[in-house]
Amino acid sequence: MNEKINIGIIGGSGYTGLELVKILKKHKYSNINFLTSRTYKNKSIAEVFPSILDDGKNSLVFKGEASKSDYGNIDLLFLCLPPHSSMEHIKNNIHNKNLKIIDIGSDFRINDPASYKLWYGTDHTIPELLKDFVYGLPEINRELIKKSTYVANPGCYPTSILLGLAPLLESGQKPDNISIDSKSGVSGAGRKLKEPYLFGSMDNNFYAYSPEGHRHIGEMEQEIKKISGLDYKIDFTPHLLPVSRGIFSSIYCKVAEGQPEDFKEKIVRDYSDFYKNSIFVKIFADGIPQIKDVVGTNRCLIGINYDKRTSTLKIFSVIDNLLKGAAGQAVQNMNLMFGLEESEGLESNGLYS
Amino acid sequence: MNEKINIGIIGGSGYTGLELVKILKKHKYSNINFLTSRTYKNKSIAEVFPSILDDGKNSLVFKGEASKSDYGNIDLLFLCLPPHSSMEHIKNNIHNKNLKIIDIGSDFRINDPASYKLWYGTDHTIPELLKDFVYGLPEINRELIKKSTYVANPGCYPTSILLGLAPLLESGQKPDNISIDSKSGVSGAGRKLKEPYLFGSMDNNFYAYSPEGHRHIGEMEQEIKKISGLDYKIDFTPHLLPVSRGIFSSIYCKVAEGQPEDFKEKIVRDYSDFYKNSIFVKIFADGIPQIKDVVGTNRCLIGINYDKRTSTLKIFSVIDNLLKGAAGQAVQNMNLMFGLEESEGLESNGLYS
Amino acid sequence: MNEKINIGIIGGSGYTGLELVKILKKHKYSNINFLTSRTYKNKSIAEVFPSILDDGKNSLVFKGEASKSDYGNIDLLFLCLPPHSSMEHIKNNIHNKNLKIIDIGSDFRINDPASYKLWYGTDHTIPELLKDFVYGLPEINRELIKKSTYVANPGCYPTSILLGLAPLLESGQKPDNISIDSKSGVSGAGRKLKEPYLFGSMDNNFYAYSPEGHRHIGEMEQEIKKISGLDYKIDFTPHLLPVSRGIFSSIYCKVAEGQPEDFKEKIVRDYSDFYKNSIFVKIFADGIPQIKDVVGTNRCLIGINYDKRTSTLKIFSVIDNLLKGAAGQAVQNMNLMFGLEESEGLESNGLYS
Amino acid sequence: MNEKINIGIIGGSGYTGLELVKILKKHKYSNINFLTSRTYKNKSIAEVFPSILDDGKNSLVFKGEASKSDYGNIDLLFLCLPPHSSMEHIKNNIHNKNLKIIDIGSDFRINDPASYKLWYGTDHTIPELLKDFVYGLPEINRELIKKSTYVANPGCYPTSILLGLAPLLESGQKPDNISIDSKSGVSGAGRKLKEPYLFGSMDNNFYAYSPEGHRHIGEMEQEIKKISGLDYKIDFTPHLLPVSRGIFSSIYCKVAEGQPEDFKEKIVRDYSDFYKNSIFVKIFADGIPQIKDVVGTNRCLIGINYDKRTSTLKIFSVIDNLLKGAAGQAVQNMNLMFGLEESEGLESNGLYS
Repeated sequence: MNEKINIGIIGGSGYTGLELVKILKKHKYSNINFLTSRTYKNKSIAEVFPSILDDGKNSLVFKGEASKSDYGNIDLLFLCLPPHSSMEHIKNNIHNKNLKIIDIGSDFRINDPASYKLWYGTDHTIPELLKDFVYGLPEINRELIKKSTYVANPGCYPTSILLGLAPLLESGQKPDNISIDSKSGVSGAGRKLKEPYLFGSMDNNFYAYSPEGHRHIGEMEQEIKKISGLDYKIDFTPHLLPVSRGIFSSIYCKVAEGQPEDFKEKIVRDYSDFYKNSIFVKIFADGIPQIKDVVGTNRCLIGINYDKRTSTLKIFSVIDNLLKGAAGQAVQNMNLMFGLEESEGLESNGLYS
Repeated sequence: MNEKINIGIIGGSGYTGLELVKILKKHKYSNINFLTSRTYKNKSIAEVFPSILDDGKNSLVFKGEASKSDYGNIDLLFLCLPPHSSMEHIKNNIHNKNLKIIDIGSDFRINDPASYKLWYGTDHTIPELLKDFVYGLPEINRELIKKSTYVANPGCYPTSILLGLAPLLESGQKPDNISIDSKSGVSGAGRKLKEPYLFGSMDNNFYAYSPEGHRHIGEMEQEIKKISGLDYKIDFTPHLLPVSRGIFSSIYCKVAEGQPEDFKEKIVRDYSDFYKNSIFVKIFADGIPQIKDVVGTNRCLIGINYDKRTSTLKIFSVIDNLLKGAAGQAVQNMNLMFGLEESEGLESNGLYS
Repeated sequence: MNEKINIGIIGGSGYTGLELVKILKKHKYSNINFLTSRTYKNKSIAEVFPSILDDGKNSLVFKGEASKSDYGNIDLLFLCLPPHSSMEHIKNNIHNKNLKIIDIGSDFRINDPASYKLWYGTDHTIPELLKDFVYGLPEINRELIKKSTYVANPGCYPTSILLGLAPLLESGQKPDNISIDSKSGVSGAGRKLKEPYLFGSMDNNFYAYSPEGHRHIGEMEQEIKKISGLDYKIDFTPHLLPVSRGIFSSIYCKVAEGQPEDFKEKIVRDYSDFYKNSIFVKIFADGIPQIKDVVGTNRCLIGINYDKRTSTLKIFSVIDNLLKGAAGQAVQNMNLMFGLEESEGLESNGLYS
Repeated sequence: MNEKINIGIIGGSGYTGLELVKILKKHKYSNINFLTSRTYKNKSIAEVFPSILDDGKNSLVFKGEASKSDYGNIDLLFLCLPPHSSMEHIKNNIHNKNLKIIDIGSDFRINDPASYKLWYGTDHTIPELLKDFVYGLPEINRELIKKSTYVANPGCYPTSILLGLAPLLESGQKPDNISIDSKSGVSGAGRKLKEPYLFGSMDNNFYAYSPEGHRHIGEMEQEIKKISGLDYKIDFTPHLLPVSRGIFSSIYCKVAEGQPEDFKEKIVRDYSDFYKNSIFVKIFADGIPQIKDVVGTNRCLIGINYDKRTSTLKIFSVIDNLLKGAAGQAVQNMNLMFGLEESEGLESNGLYS
């Protein structure tokens, strides 16, 4: 029987941090050694989040900051921090190069410092570390993750989109054009106190944002190149949905005309083969997955349709942005890094249906 | 001062019929002579729809069916019927060829019987009438509508999309590819008693449907050809939003590379010029319109963005599917047909913001 | 034909101010002379609120503050300000005692300075004016309002509750106990940037607040005394609903046992008589009104039920908190003060059904 | 280590049946032997409910009906059937008197046949069995349940209300009056295809129903009598909330005037003592629990407030109607009946916060 993994969590009170705590509290081999939150310093999680099943007696208490000895007591550090903060945190606090780290933030997803600057607008402050981080998409980089010390957890949009594209690109298909229209629940924006995120602003509302270049494009084109060897410029438009959780990505690929009669069936087979050992991914040969099918789960459901009239392959990829798009995938990465069953702690069957 | 228009409404109890009644009750020159509903036969509208401001004393009463003399007493007939029913209704009941008709259903939007069969799956039963119906999109066919006897009210998706494309196509731009990702509120499906439309099914949910060929495509390609002279095959994918009302269409047009620096500004000018006499259309040069900006109004808001990196013009077009996409546009058409101010009865400032 | 009323609006950019502007833009006899907003100073309403039907050319522009001459040009001033601000505004700016004022805020609803201090926690700064304000509930104080210069627009909860109780108390019934459980949409809290009002906090949520003494109780007990002559201590508990707009008040009155067989019918008759000249109020003898029946309207719908087993009269009273509970009622008061038709500008038939 | 419990489920495709399957799939000692559904006969659960984590290979398949031998292979039968169907099912199919049964339906909650007829409108068809069923509210009847063969799972409203009242009544307090205003999510109505449950009907809506005598009253008064020895006639009014899941019960108890200064503190202590061994119940001394705190969990959160001015104790009790109000509580009962840890399989930390 495995020993417990001693874990530290930096930034444990946002939506992602909370989901991470919820999963780890049920995980057989996890021991949360400390978690930090400036907002809730010295409060217990039972007090702050009544939804967590906890008798309140030995409840975890948020620290304002981790101490030097805290870092010495753990096997794994999760970072749940806003852009530009993970690199500062590592620079200032992490002196043991062997401490395993999973960064759920966006600082280490881009490998090339110049590309980082292009998409994030500033210089990276520890660019020499970029190459040491493995891109933590288990269904694609499983073996690399198993051997890694540092993992950069993918963005929520890229997770849904790369899982939706990888089997196609791997199979040698070279679509003429890839156009992606993604829709995300409001939790994607975190707990920000801004008027657009008020209930009165989002209830019964919907709209596009960042249509002329969202940050996640850099990360997606980098990984597409690794998979296909090709330099795609993808056209990506995110939208905001009046739901709490979930991402639905509609991926439109123009393929050559004159495909064989069983083109769609072939694609479905390629996808099923590609994911045959990936329990969290499920292919819909008929029908289209829905956001309610994934809320509360670590799954990615992929629907495949082919519009022959316009030679468009339409791939619909759905995840829970806080789980497969953030905390769930982070735990999946942890399981791989520590030789555990990939689904340990991630068996949730979801909320709806 | 104008005289009142005597009006008959067939199918007055669905979402569209109800919106039509609400507008006409406030319209200065409207007199609803009769309205029918099998479901609510002999009930008053005040009883069925408490939201209608009505003292209940002289309230309109739903008839099960209109009588022969009913048709003789009216100047204008609105049809709010499901597919295949409008043609049957006209065939069986309308003998006065001069009676003005606005069909809010889908039976007379396609001009060519063969195309009708292709998209609707059955033969049209009065194909000789197809050519007599004017496509009732006032911002594009205003003069034709003024002189028409029969008007086919456009579909909700086509309204949002054609208004979003017309100025571009008219200006001589010939995009290489037009790909449209539309999202509609649940009222687009009417009051159908099916499990997917239950609150428990749609709350916090979202998904695509009909990805391999939605009926509205025929109507859109027909009108695009009239505007541009070109035979586009558009790629269209509708989705269902967890909102009651509203359509948001994201229209992606691939344009040639190497556009001039002020390309976007030029497009915005083209759109503003095109709609300068159309009070219900508003162009967003900066910013993106939202569904909540149009709910409860007869407006179409259009946002224009240009992603230079991928040479993609991104046009976002938003309407209330029950108003500009159905009953509101029908009254706009009525106003034109009877020489009234185009916005009479349609001054509503919406519900949200 | 009436002349136009020249109107000033202080605080025109909150939910209530916006609704007021929307109504007045469609009101036949209204001319908005100026409106102020610190947030949107120098912006046009067409720019800030795209939902307002406006060609953008002669659009109203928000002023940061009203000037001395502004106050000289108007016949009526609406105040849409947070607690404690209306009195300061009047004290500092209003020198013409004959200028008609409708305060949509809460500063002048309580007549007695001691009671004001009890419920609002501070001394009133112009207590001598309290007695000059008429409580603006038209269905009860219609004649007083017609002759008044100053009107205090009732709170949203009190509007729903007093309209639900007035006929009962007037009829001489003296319930042993009045217990009220009210539920309000989130817009009742205004556009406050606080975590509880985020979409992620309220979506699919519901809870009670202020259970040990909400401010609106003082106002309600004062008016109940005026109607019934009795000193009731009412037990009132507000709750927050995951809807944008609407209040549903469940009013439980314990009546004496042994009522006659036709007790409920008698109560229904009393209510119908009481409101026979009040177009916005509608009594449901059977069935229960719903929030969707009133959203977007100035109506108050009242359902009456009698649970004989426990001798409990259950009155359900429903309004749109931003209309009958705020801006709509304010315009209704304006109509009365200026001798207009009571429903002018308030004919909206609502959004849903 | 315990052996697995062999389980049969009748009616496994409704909201409650699905939740039950989800819990049992993760339960360490559960083996679902068969589950039935007429609607989904011969389909696998992986196919019908994509939200269930399942590789689809050895997926459970719905049977149309259970066979005679099926009943012989199980240790425990769950019934998830509509009113009047559980008794028919037992009468026709269950011949082994020792087979453990948990009825999640409403047929066996009332002990007295006359009372059953009063509240359910028909005669019970196997009245002799009523006395053999234990009322399955573990926090109150834990010891009885451990020894029972037949358990009647409580209704969702009664669960929230009885847990909210039990410590008060046990402590000897005798409130003069108990008035309860409950609000339930739409899933409480099941998957019924009726217009009031459409998304377009419930979105942004709210209303009361059954105000003159809801069936759950009989069950509540029966259990209140067992706890307190008193014959209360409680005044109960249910309402429908625009949320998928959750019940919020506001319980108003009039207590004698002149309570000691620390009255509320004493009540809070009584509640904390009463539930000190009940992990799923949590008392809020300050603050008010919210529906989002319990969605997806088996918890009951109870807030206690005292309005001294009106001598009203206000108890707010919140549960997830499908879990603590149905399937979760059923598994809690199963755990007790089979000597397992009470929380086995019920550790979920919920969806929101």
